[in-house]
Amino acid sequence: MSNNTATMQESFPMTGGDGSYSYANNSYFQRQCANASKSMIEEAIAEKLDVQALSTKTFCLADLGCSVGPNTFVDIQHIVGAVERRYLALGLKSHIPEFQVFFNDHAANDFNTLFASLPTERRYFACGVPGSFHGRLFPESSIHFMYSSNALHWLSRMPDEILDKNSPLHGTREGAKELVVGGIMVLIMSTLPDGTSPYRSPPRASYDILESCLMETGIISEAQADSFNHPLYRPSLEQLTALVERNGCFSIERMELTNPASKLDGPMSGHAYTMHVRATIEGLVAKHFRSESVDQLFHLFFKKIENMSRQLELDPKEEIQRFVVLKRK
Amino acid sequence: MSNNTATMQESFPMTGGDGSYSYANNSYFQRQCANASKSMIEEAIAEKLDVQALSTKTFCLADLGCSVGPNTFVDIQHIVGAVERRYLALGLKSHIPEFQVFFNDHAANDFNTLFASLPTERRYFACGVPGSFHGRLFPESSIHFMYSSNALHWLSRMPDEILDKNSPLHGTREGAKELVVGGIMVLIMSTLPDGTSPYRSPPRASYDILESCLMETGIISEAQADSFNHPLYRPSLEQLTALVERNGCFSIERMELTNPASKLDGPMSGHAYTMHVRATIEGLVAKHFRSESVDQLFHLFFKKIENMSRQLELDPKEEIQRFVVLKRK
Repeated sequence: MSNNTATMQESFPMTGGDGSYSYANNSYFQRQCANASKSMIEEAIAEKLDVQALSTKTFCLADLGCSVGPNTFVDIQHIVGAVERRYLALGLKSHIPEFQVFFNDHAANDFNTLFASLPTERRYFACGVPGSFHGRLFPESSIHFMYSSNALHWLSRMPDEILDKNSPLHGTREGAKELVVGGIMVLIMSTLPDGTSPYRSPPRASYDILESCLMETGIISEAQADSFNHPLYRPSLEQLTALVERNGCFSIERMELTNPASKLDGPMSGHAYTMHVRATIEGLVAKHFRSESVDQLFHLFFKKIENMSRQLELDPKEEIQRFVVLKRK
Repeated sequence: MSNNTATMQESFPMTGGDGSYSYANNSYFQRQCANASKSMIEEAIAEKLDVQALSTKTFCLADLGCSVGPNTFVDIQHIVGAVERRYLALGLKSHIPEFQVFFNDHAANDFNTLFASLPTERRYFACGVPGSFHGRLFPESSIHFMYSSNALHWLSRMPDEILDKNSPLHGTREGAKELVVGGIMVLIMSTLPDGTSPYRSPPRASYDILESCLMETGIISEAQADSFNHPLYRPSLEQLTALVERNGCFSIERMELTNPASKLDGPMSGHAYTMHVRATIEGLVAKHFRSESVDQLFHLFFKKIENMSRQLELDPKEEIQRFVVLKRK
C-alpha cells in the first residue's frame, strides 16, 4: 500500500508548466479511481448478480443522476459489457438479453445534449427519464441494475430517501419497489467517519479554499458556488448499515473505499491532502462541470493549502468515497 | 352527413375581425377531428385490445414522432384512460397495470421542452426515446400500444419502413418485433386515392399557396418551407393493404377517414376546399408549429384560393387523412 501511495505522489505533478496539465500526464488518479470502480462493478456483477435466476429477455439498467455525459456512457457501457461477460462465463451466450438503459436526472438536466452525444455504436436501447429520484421513476419490478455515481444534485437527500423507512419521503420514493427481486443497486457516494452527523459540512477552511479555487479556475460561477452551501447528506458506515437494515428490502453485499489515499493515517501533508480531496471529489467535478479543468483546479488548491495543512488538522478519513453494493431481497 | 357539413361551414368563420380568431370561436374543426380520433382510439382499445390475454403488470405505450407537446400529452392521457376503462368494463379494477410511456422523436427534437411540460398529474412513468423510428427503438416484445399521429418529420418514409418487407430499411426497422403479440398499432396518416403514386405531391398550385400562407403568417421560415419540398409518402388504401399483407405480422383491424369533409364529391368551392385542407393538415401544423396560428393561416388560404377553385379542379378525395388500426399477430 505504501509503495502504491508513493508512486501516486510521484506521478501526480502538482507543480510545473501548463504543458504538464495534459490528461496523458495527469490522469493517474483518474485512472486509478475509474479502474477501482470498474473492477468493483465487474466483481459485483460476476459474484452478486444471478442472471440465471433473473431469466429476462430485456435487461433494464438505470443511471440515477446521470448528468449529460460522457461519464455515464462510459459507466453504462462497462456495466453492459460486464453483464454480457457474465452470460458468456456461464456458457449462456444464446441467452444474452437485449439491454434497455434509462438515463435519469432532474427535468432541468440538459437531455438534448445527452441525447445528441449518445454513442452511435451502443449495444442498448436508450431512454431519458426526467425527474427526482426521490419519487417513483419506474414501474414496479422493472429495473435489474440501478446505478448512481457522484450524483451531485442529489447527494443532499439521496441515501435517506432510498433507504430510510422513517424518512418523510419514503412513501413516495419506494425505490426498492422498482428493482426486481435479485436486482443490484450500486452507489458511489461520500461517507463520513462513524459518530459524525450525516449533515456535517467538510472542514470549513478547506471547503472555502476549494470553493475559491472552483471560482478562480472558472469551473463554477459565483451563483453556482452558492449551491455548494447546500448540506450534503453523507452517512457513516454505521448509519448506512442501520438504514439498509431498517429498510429491510436489501442485503448489503459490499461497502468499500474507492480511493486508496483514504487509508493513510492523518494528519497529512498538503500534498497528500490535495490528492485525497482530489480522489474524493474529482469524479463529481469532472462529471458535472468541465473535466479538463480538474488538473488546473487541484494545482491551485495545492498551492493554497500546502502551508496550512498542520493548522487545519486535516484528517484523511474525514471524507471517504465508498462503493456500495446492495441486493434486492 | 350533408347537415353536418352545412353546420361545419357555418361555424367556420372564414371572414371577420381578429377577435373571431379565438380558439373558442374557431375550434369546431379541431374538436371534430380530435373527437373523431378519440372515439376511434376508444373503440380500438375496447374492441381490439385483449387486456386479459396481455396479462401485464406494466402497460407500455409509445408515441412515435411525438414532437414537443402538448398534443402528445392529450393523446397519451386519452389512451391511458381508455385502457383503464377497458379493465374497469371487464371488472378487472384490481388488475389495472402501471403505465410506462415512451415519447419518441428524432434526437434533434427538443426533449428539454417536452420534459419541462410533462403534466404533473400524469398517471404514467415518462421516458424520452431519441432516434428515428426507421431503426429499432425498443427491446423485442416490449410495447403494448404503438401510436403515431401526424408525424411530420417521418411521413416521408414511415409506412414503407414499418410495413414493407422489401424496403431496404426493413431489416433494421423490424417495428413489428417491438410490439407484443396482441399489441395494437394506431397510425393517423395521409393517404391518396387508389392508383396514385405514394410519392405524388399535392396539387402544385394549392401547395404553393399553402406554402406562401405558412410563410406570410410567420408559422414557418423560408428555410423551414424548403423542407416542405421533401416528398411525402402517402400510400393509397390499396397500397397500404398490400404492404400490411406482405409484411405478414399484422392484421388490419380498421382503416377509416378522420375528416368527414373528405366524403364530399368534387369539385369543391374554395370554401369547402379550404375546410378540407384544414381538416387534413391542421393537426400536423398545430403539432409541429404554433397551434394558435392555425385560424390565421386558413383565413389567408381561403382568401387566396376562393377565386381559383374551379381552375384548380380541386378534388376532395385527393388527400385523405386515415385512422389505421393494426394488430400484432
